[in-house]
Amino acid sequence: MDREDALACFRERFVIDDQDLIYLDGNSLGRQPKRAADLVSVAAEQQWAKRLVTGWPDSWYTLPQRLGAKIAGLIGAREDEVIVADSTSVNFFKLAHAALMARPGGSAILTDRDNFPSDVYLLQGLLEVAPGHRLRIAETEGATGESNQVLAGKINADTALVTVSHTAFKSGFVYDMTAITEAAHRHGALVLWDLSHSVGAMPVDLEAAGADMAVGCTYKYLNGGPGSPAFLYVRRELQAQLTSPIWGWFGQRAPFDFSLEYEPAPGIRRFMAGTPPILSMVAIEAGVDLLLEAGMERIRAKSVCQTEYLIALWREFLQPLGISLNSPTESAKRGSHVSFGHPDGLRIDKALIEQMNVIPDFRFPDNIRYGIAPLYTTYREIWEGVARLKQVVEEKLYERYSSEKPEVT
Amino acid sequence: MDREDALACFRERFVIDDQDLIYLDGNSLGRQPKRAADLVSVAAEQQWAKRLVTGWPDSWYTLPQRLGAKIAGLIGAREDEVIVADSTSVNFFKLAHAALMARPGGSAILTDRDNFPSDVYLLQGLLEVAPGHRLRIAETEGATGESNQVLAGKINADTALVTVSHTAFKSGFVYDMTAITEAAHRHGALVLWDLSHSVGAMPVDLEAAGADMAVGCTYKYLNGGPGSPAFLYVRRELQAQLTSPIWGWFGQRAPFDFSLEYEPAPGIRRFMAGTPPILSMVAIEAGVDLLLEAGMERIRAKSVCQTEYLIALWREFLQPLGISLNSPTESAKRGSHVSFGHPDGLRIDKALIEQMNVIPDFRFPDNIRYGIAPLYTTYREIWEGVARLKQVVEEKLYERYSSEKPEVT
Repeated sequence: MDREDALACFRERFVIDDQDLIYLDGNSLGRQPKRAADLVSVAAEQQWAKRLVTGWPDSWYTLPQRLGAKIAGLIGAREDEVIVADSTSVNFFKLAHAALMARPGGSAILTDRDNFPSDVYLLQGLLEVAPGHRLRIAETEGATGESNQVLAGKINADTALVTVSHTAFKSGFVYDMTAITEAAHRHGALVLWDLSHSVGAMPVDLEAAGADMAVGCTYKYLNGGPGSPAFLYVRRELQAQLTSPIWGWFGQRAPFDFSLEYEPAPGIRRFMAGTPPILSMVAIEAGVDLLLEAGMERIRAKSVCQTEYLIALWREFLQPLGISLNSPTESAKRGSHVSFGHPDGLRIDKALIEQMNVIPDFRFPDNIRYGIAPLYTTYREIWEGVARLKQVVEEKLYERYSSEKPEVT
Repeated sequence: MDREDALACFRERFVIDDQDLIYLDGNSLGRQPKRAADLVSVAAEQQWAKRLVTGWPDSWYTLPQRLGAKIAGLIGAREDEVIVADSTSVNFFKLAHAALMARPGGSAILTDRDNFPSDVYLLQGLLEVAPGHRLRIAETEGATGESNQVLAGKINADTALVTVSHTAFKSGFVYDMTAITEAAHRHGALVLWDLSHSVGAMPVDLEAAGADMAVGCTYKYLNGGPGSPAFLYVRRELQAQLTSPIWGWFGQRAPFDFSLEYEPAPGIRRFMAGTPPILSMVAIEAGVDLLLEAGMERIRAKSVCQTEYLIALWREFLQPLGISLNSPTESAKRGSHVSFGHPDGLRIDKALIEQMNVIPDFRFPDNIRYGIAPLYTTYREIWEGVARLKQVVEEKLYERYSSEKPEVT
């Protein structure tokens, strides 16, 4: 299968020094494109060290928009609808707050219990910032695939904002973006999509879905590097109606006029806040360019093949050992990672990392996630990842590890 | 003077390839410490590329606190009172909002017209987020040195928050931190200091002043690189009383438990938001370590000598040409930059950059700022910076440049 893989050539565009390492956590931190180090080195050694402050007008000032325009090509947005800024959390806060202020009629924020806890925390905080609103959490069951109906059924005239993760971080369930957006719009609500586990893993078509707002992460399938700045999307027609609560100078119409009266920049730039972290930002371009070069349709096709293969191996080798499948079996409803459940999941995860040279990740209470990044994940890795997991469980190699949670996983 | 300068040896710790370039804009973007590129390279090539996601527990997760503890040593804070996170703008928003929520009695935010416009914008935005508050802007005249009395005189029982830049970005005037803080506390108000133009340029003693909160920039005198993440300070006793409006997962007690109920981390970590940008963050340590090694008292002593020397040269050579001094003459009230005024300031600035290999910066309407970073600025540079400015004005070399504002300066 690796020999017949048309995307196999992309693996050598990444830094991979240990070919025995089975890295299945590209959905937490993507591998490093070889070109990323060059981009960082140019920014540090050519621009910062030599061009000094003139790096701003020469190179950096327009970078958030330039990168946003490229990311737009991955998510079905227009070039002037996406910008790179801040973290996913800060972007989510800005857009969720803006949506509530723009929809004074509705008082409810609707999310689901399969959402990132980080997004739910931000919404809980928003209730303090914007009193009079309340948070409703739909009782979805990601892996069963019924979430579309469950979530849509909770939208009503009191709903100001619907916000969920397009691909659920535990199960990998993927929402029907068009159906949810339509249901929200029917009731006058806005929708804010978290694309963190979708962007770079599958084609997303925000424009076709009529989506309002989105945020997403660049350090997962975009391979932007640890904590690389996030992106945000606001549909062109909504940009003038929404106001970020953080009136930072990079969102000002003319930041270098140093006027004392804030006036938002026209267009997407108004959703920026402060000065962006350049060394972390320049690295993003390498991974985005690789994805654009490979094409999201081809990436998705390979991702589906690979998750199907992984599930077939699970059925053959892992299910008999008492390992459950916590992801949808229907590929159309599944993202690019597959979750396995086992009561000793955390101990198994530790054994895989420390004894077997496999890096998956673990999400409480019992999910071992195998993330597939088609640009560099091979079929051999999937086979090995299953074989080594099988060995850990069969030989009970996990028993020497404690089930105590580490502070950082 | 350069021969007798005890700090002269620090210049070679920075990347300086063009010795003829007179760089007087370290107060906008500090030069690159040689070690910064090494730190970035370790994070990119050793950690991200090879250790992958395990870089988080191994190296990165505690970095915001570790860097914060070092910066605490520059500003008279305790190690657990400072953290590196987000941009100055986002940190300012978080703390200003937190202060307003903690002081429901007062309705007014007090700032001054010498503050960074970026901070004033954020306050204007905050009025929309937290209705019922109002913004008062004290009519200070930075360079005259009367700002302490003007600002203190405006604080009253209705004041919830006083927030100014400790060193004014145009004039370089430095507030009396203790006097302002005491005046605010007398009326039950909190004080939020913007230390962006002070940190790394002079000793700051937040603890001695009884300061409540502070934010500051790491890319100016700390030499952290373009847009490097900012720091924030909250006095230990206030930490549990203040709540960031942005309930991000890095501020959660146990972010990797993935619980759906937000519970703020104990201590300073609760003021973090999302995942920090690591490549931009690691570089900060190099400059901070150099400042700690040199010692802020020695840095301040050199800064005072150098600004005095610059003003003496102004008096001799520039004042006769119609160039005004827009900074305090008394060194105790002056930071580490000196502003000169001229009606053709912008055109002169352009001529200096394009013809004379001098990089100052320009702040509207007429300020040419000469920023002194004692770790690398030489007395020769100051002499040359004045000589070349004199030549530009005497020979009217600026006349070929337009007075049109560039988008980015």
